[in-house]
Amino acid sequence: MHGHNVNNIVMREIRMRKSVRAFEGAPITPATRARLVEAALQAPTAGNQTLYAIIDIKDPEKKARLATLCDNQPFIATAQLVLVFIADCHRWQELYRAAGINARPPGPGDALLAMADALIAAQNVVVAAESFGLGSCYIGDILEHCEEIRQLLSLPGETFPAAMLVIGYPTAQQRERKKPRRFAPETIVHENAYRPLEKAALRAMYADHVGIPVEDIDGSVQAFCNRKYLSDFAREMNRSATVYLEAFLQSGWDAGERE
Amino acid sequence: MHGHNVNNIVMREIRMRKSVRAFEGAPITPATRARLVEAALQAPTAGNQTLYAIIDIKDPEKKARLATLCDNQPFIATAQLVLVFIADCHRWQELYRAAGINARPPGPGDALLAMADALIAAQNVVVAAESFGLGSCYIGDILEHCEEIRQLLSLPGETFPAAMLVIGYPTAQQRERKKPRRFAPETIVHENAYRPLEKAALRAMYADHVGIPVEDIDGSVQAFCNRKYLSDFAREMNRSATVYLEAFLQSGWDAGERE
Repeated sequence: MHGHNVNNIVMREIRMRKSVRAFEGAPITPATRARLVEAALQAPTAGNQTLYAIIDIKDPEKKARLATLCDNQPFIATAQLVLVFIADCHRWQELYRAAGINARPPGPGDALLAMADALIAAQNVVVAAESFGLGSCYIGDILEHCEEIRQLLSLPGETFPAAMLVIGYPTAQQRERKKPRRFAPETIVHENAYRPLEKAALRAMYADHVGIPVEDIDGSVQAFCNRKYLSDFAREMNRSATVYLEAFLQSGWDAGERE
Repeated sequence: MHGHNVNNIVMREIRMRKSVRAFEGAPITPATRARLVEAALQAPTAGNQTLYAIIDIKDPEKKARLATLCDNQPFIATAQLVLVFIADCHRWQELYRAAGINARPPGPGDALLAMADALIAAQNVVVAAESFGLGSCYIGDILEHCEEIRQLLSLPGETFPAAMLVIGYPTAQQRERKKPRRFAPETIVHENAYRPLEKAALRAMYADHVGIPVEDIDGSVQAFCNRKYLSDFAREMNRSATVYLEAFLQSGWDAGERE
């Protein structure tokens, strides 16, 4: 029982997995699609509520529009399988109503719990996909352009997109691509409390991460910061996330307390 | 290449996994702990940034305090491994500062992206743990009591707890416990757009879920709603989530645009 091999097949799949951004044209069979959905549904979910919906984007025009809305990444439209994981506080509200219960509106805690459910399910799909020889990539940009995304996917008010996964068979080039290096465990795992890293440790961490001498990192960090953190898409993501979250903050979830 | 078995070992582990809430006393070896951390670090992460920290709670007094703060669940303190996954927008802010860059403060989109990273990593740990014969359980209640949790874990301002995992070897009773039934795929997966279920479909979904006749569900739904959604802990979770999120909403992330 306690003698399990910790370098087993599951660990090997987890270690081998890397994001894939170029796909072969080969279709994904219905049996494989069904197993990927099963992997999502078998994931842990808060109170066994399944606080998410999965939108399977089959319409090529919608795929193309998503590729544009998600920071103009054309490879999205070439994926055999495009799944949007929706944090869903709507289904249970409707169920409560259908059972004659007038429950409070969902609040920000409910929204975060639903988002957690959605990501947990999505990652099970990623692991299963890897084990089927499929490649996948999360598209964080699904958080952007909230108004058009809400319309495109017909999202009710008590939902928001938590993640998008694109999945397909990787090209040979993608299969051979080296997986980007991870941070060392000691920079990420802290004992008993959060321990901020000192300036020198942070610089060493980054230098080790990108493989350049520590005295040369400033330009590289600045370039990364400009490309990602100070980008237009990051600003748009923050604007959209504000819209999504304010709906939950101002929903009246705490009305009972205020009366 | 495309002939992978979709009923493979990975799928079996995903299907077998169920939440475990009672643990044997057997310790988890350092080698196994190291592999669990590796599983987290090998998960996908936005821009390879690892926007999370993992706090490994070894102090028995802290475990006991967390058990109390997380809706009084004593089994939390009996877990061999208690990992808190922190959505971390602080590390990169500090790295930017260490490289001489005065970047904008993190906003709500950054917070959600970090939360996604944290959950994706946590779920890799769950899958790896299952394959090592370990049981695990997410504790959503880590979102509650933000003031004391922040102090207990020394959380900097640009972070918040995204998830807690408790892990240990399951007791025989837990190993034999039946996994709770999942919703049918057709209620969760929608094609091309979100499709709200009609009242009758929602009622049938719930009846099927809990295994009672559809005409008898009202009392069961009401009891569930009272126990979970209208509970004190749900109210506290919404209050705490509000505090965590408002810090990002009001951080000044968009100051540049407003000037």
